[in-house]
Amino acid sequence: MFEARLVSSATLKKVLEAVKELLNEASFDCSDVGIQLQAMDNSHVSLVSLTLRSDGFDKYRCDRNLTMGMNLASLTKILKCANNDDTVTIKAQDDADSVTFVFESKKQEKISDYEMKLMNLDQEHLGIPETDFSCVIRMPSAEFARICRDLSQFGESVIISCTKDGVRFSAAGDIGSANIKLAQTTNFDKEEESVTIEMQEPVTLTFACQYLNSFTKATPLSPQVQLSMSANVPLVVEYQIPDLGHIRYYLAPKIEEDEN
Amino acid sequence: MFEARLVSSATLKKVLEAVKELLNEASFDCSDVGIQLQAMDNSHVSLVSLTLRSDGFDKYRCDRNLTMGMNLASLTKILKCANNDDTVTIKAQDDADSVTFVFESKKQEKISDYEMKLMNLDQEHLGIPETDFSCVIRMPSAEFARICRDLSQFGESVIISCTKDGVRFSAAGDIGSANIKLAQTTNFDKEEESVTIEMQEPVTLTFACQYLNSFTKATPLSPQVQLSMSANVPLVVEYQIPDLGHIRYYLAPKIEEDEN
Amino acid sequence: MFEARLVSSATLKKVLEAVKELLNEASFDCSDVGIQLQAMDNSHVSLVSLTLRSDGFDKYRCDRNLTMGMNLASLTKILKCANNDDTVTIKAQDDADSVTFVFESKKQEKISDYEMKLMNLDQEHLGIPETDFSCVIRMPSAEFARICRDLSQFGESVIISCTKDGVRFSAAGDIGSANIKLAQTTNFDKEEESVTIEMQEPVTLTFACQYLNSFTKATPLSPQVQLSMSANVPLVVEYQIPDLGHIRYYLAPKIEEDEN
Repeated sequence: MFEARLVSSATLKKVLEAVKELLNEASFDCSDVGIQLQAMDNSHVSLVSLTLRSDGFDKYRCDRNLTMGMNLASLTKILKCANNDDTVTIKAQDDADSVTFVFESKKQEKISDYEMKLMNLDQEHLGIPETDFSCVIRMPSAEFARICRDLSQFGESVIISCTKDGVRFSAAGDIGSANIKLAQTTNFDKEEESVTIEMQEPVTLTFACQYLNSFTKATPLSPQVQLSMSANVPLVVEYQIPDLGHIRYYLAPKIEEDEN
Repeated sequence: MFEARLVSSATLKKVLEAVKELLNEASFDCSDVGIQLQAMDNSHVSLVSLTLRSDGFDKYRCDRNLTMGMNLASLTKILKCANNDDTVTIKAQDDADSVTFVFESKKQEKISDYEMKLMNLDQEHLGIPETDFSCVIRMPSAEFARICRDLSQFGESVIISCTKDGVRFSAAGDIGSANIKLAQTTNFDKEEESVTIEMQEPVTLTFACQYLNSFTKATPLSPQVQLSMSANVPLVVEYQIPDLGHIRYYLAPKIEEDEN
Repeated sequence: MFEARLVSSATLKKVLEAVKELLNEASFDCSDVGIQLQAMDNSHVSLVSLTLRSDGFDKYRCDRNLTMGMNLASLTKILKCANNDDTVTIKAQDDADSVTFVFESKKQEKISDYEMKLMNLDQEHLGIPETDFSCVIRMPSAEFARICRDLSQFGESVIISCTKDGVRFSAAGDIGSANIKLAQTTNFDKEEESVTIEMQEPVTLTFACQYLNSFTKATPLSPQVQLSMSANVPLVVEYQIPDLGHIRYYLAPKIEEDEN
């Protein structure tokens, strides 16, 4: 028996938005520590890693480990049927071939259940080595999304250069060239508006805009995003899911371009 | 001479929204009791019946009965030109081949008139027998619209089951199955949020989602909708038009499916 | 060296919206009196004339006259990258083949620069004779936009008739005919809601809806629009750009139709 309950369906909807552009299908691994998802995107370029801790749910029970393979377009249709303030409960029998989502309105006058067939998906677990990063940047997630969207008008790649003073995002193409410089903030009204940089040594790396734009679908989950970079290792883009876990995206730098 | 005046064009716009997905053209029968429209939808499956009482208009004069056949796409273009708080007057001569809509702004500084050619449409008047229904459900119209929209993602048909405790809407298809249960409300803040059921005997009937979704275009007219059901007779979906009349939709149940 | 600075990018965005439907490319003439643009639209029917006075900029320096030919689709992409309350600075070297736009956020924590290649465009300067007009109408710009949009549903042309009592806009086509009458306002709450008419003699002229609709893209620039008309000379549609200049559109009347 598996059962996991969240008082508000809104978080679950945002988590789904954060992965469904990258993944058509996904295997959710459920155990007593929580729900995990790790998968390469559809084009096998970037990696998505999602962790929802069991203690973040309002109720959580997992008698035996189980893996639930889901079609994310179908899951989207089901979650659209929940109001944002509906309680959502995910239920499955051990060895089940289906999962049930139960949505309950605040006053209990409306109760809906949706049963969805599960899928058998190939699993490929990738070891992700712990790395000390040369630069770790924390910045407003909406600002990062805006920069990625703006620069993708000018070229297919974004160059991210980080020094201790600030971070520079650049792109160039047929129209011309674009540079956006963010300074580390010294004073700010709200912590979530701050730009902070932890730097061991400066780094300049180039990434494909397309994937960065997909990662920013996680923006509604968290007011801040963390970018971790070192030469020759994948960029990690991390969003905290408040009180519940986090989602991380990994993307290898482009190597053909030499910029500084 | 026919002349009918409403202080606000907003109601007329909503009435048009409620019929234009089902009907390309419509014959409006005008007499001293008011304006009536009765027609099968374009695919001749469901029936629309609209009544606007003469005493609901701010001014109403109808010297001789007349029937005005209108193209509803053209009528939509004309009504789009009215501001919601414009006064609207509908005018036609006896035996006229055109109708004129006059829109006047609150301060009278803008007066517009639109003349539209009338059409000769075949008339088919269908007697609708009075029926005692096994179940009459009143519920929030927005909730009914939401349920029809949500369930149409899962299958082409919706099964509506009514007992004295509540009403259940179900659908099933390739993705899986969906059930939505509404309980009769015992206490509620606003009458328009209530779910009330008058039941002689339980009923379970199946209907095509497509038509139910078209009926819910009338949702802006009224905060509540009334569903009347008996075995083997058409469902009646009724919206009151406050102080002016009502619109009713009739849809026969599907017979191929045996559910309970 | 050319440098022009505006505290808010919002005005520049609105100016671009006002011309980009009519012009694919544009030559901006910069001198010490300001920035000017004069061009026939893409189909060589109407004329656009834009004046931005140097004293309207927060900083303005133009050492030598220069003409900057720009692709307006590229310029739109660049201006989309500015927040509405960003300061914008336009910079170019004398004899430069590129222009740079610098956007600075209020707190200076984000500074972006965009460099765009300039184009060599054919220049055709048209002398626009000063005219005394038979009728000059001032009216709310949003009302003029609404009327042009509404009437273009009914026909390709709008007939504008001006007398001392008011102005009438008419159109006719397959659906039927439409007439909108605006009275000169005698008292009004806000000056920007007024309709005022200066008339030497009555005028009735016919214009193509398509161009009038394009002109109304300037509506966000100003709460009032001024229409100047005389028989057999182009209509002038003018929007003030507060504290900075104005934009004028010229459109010759259609001659094939004789209406009054």
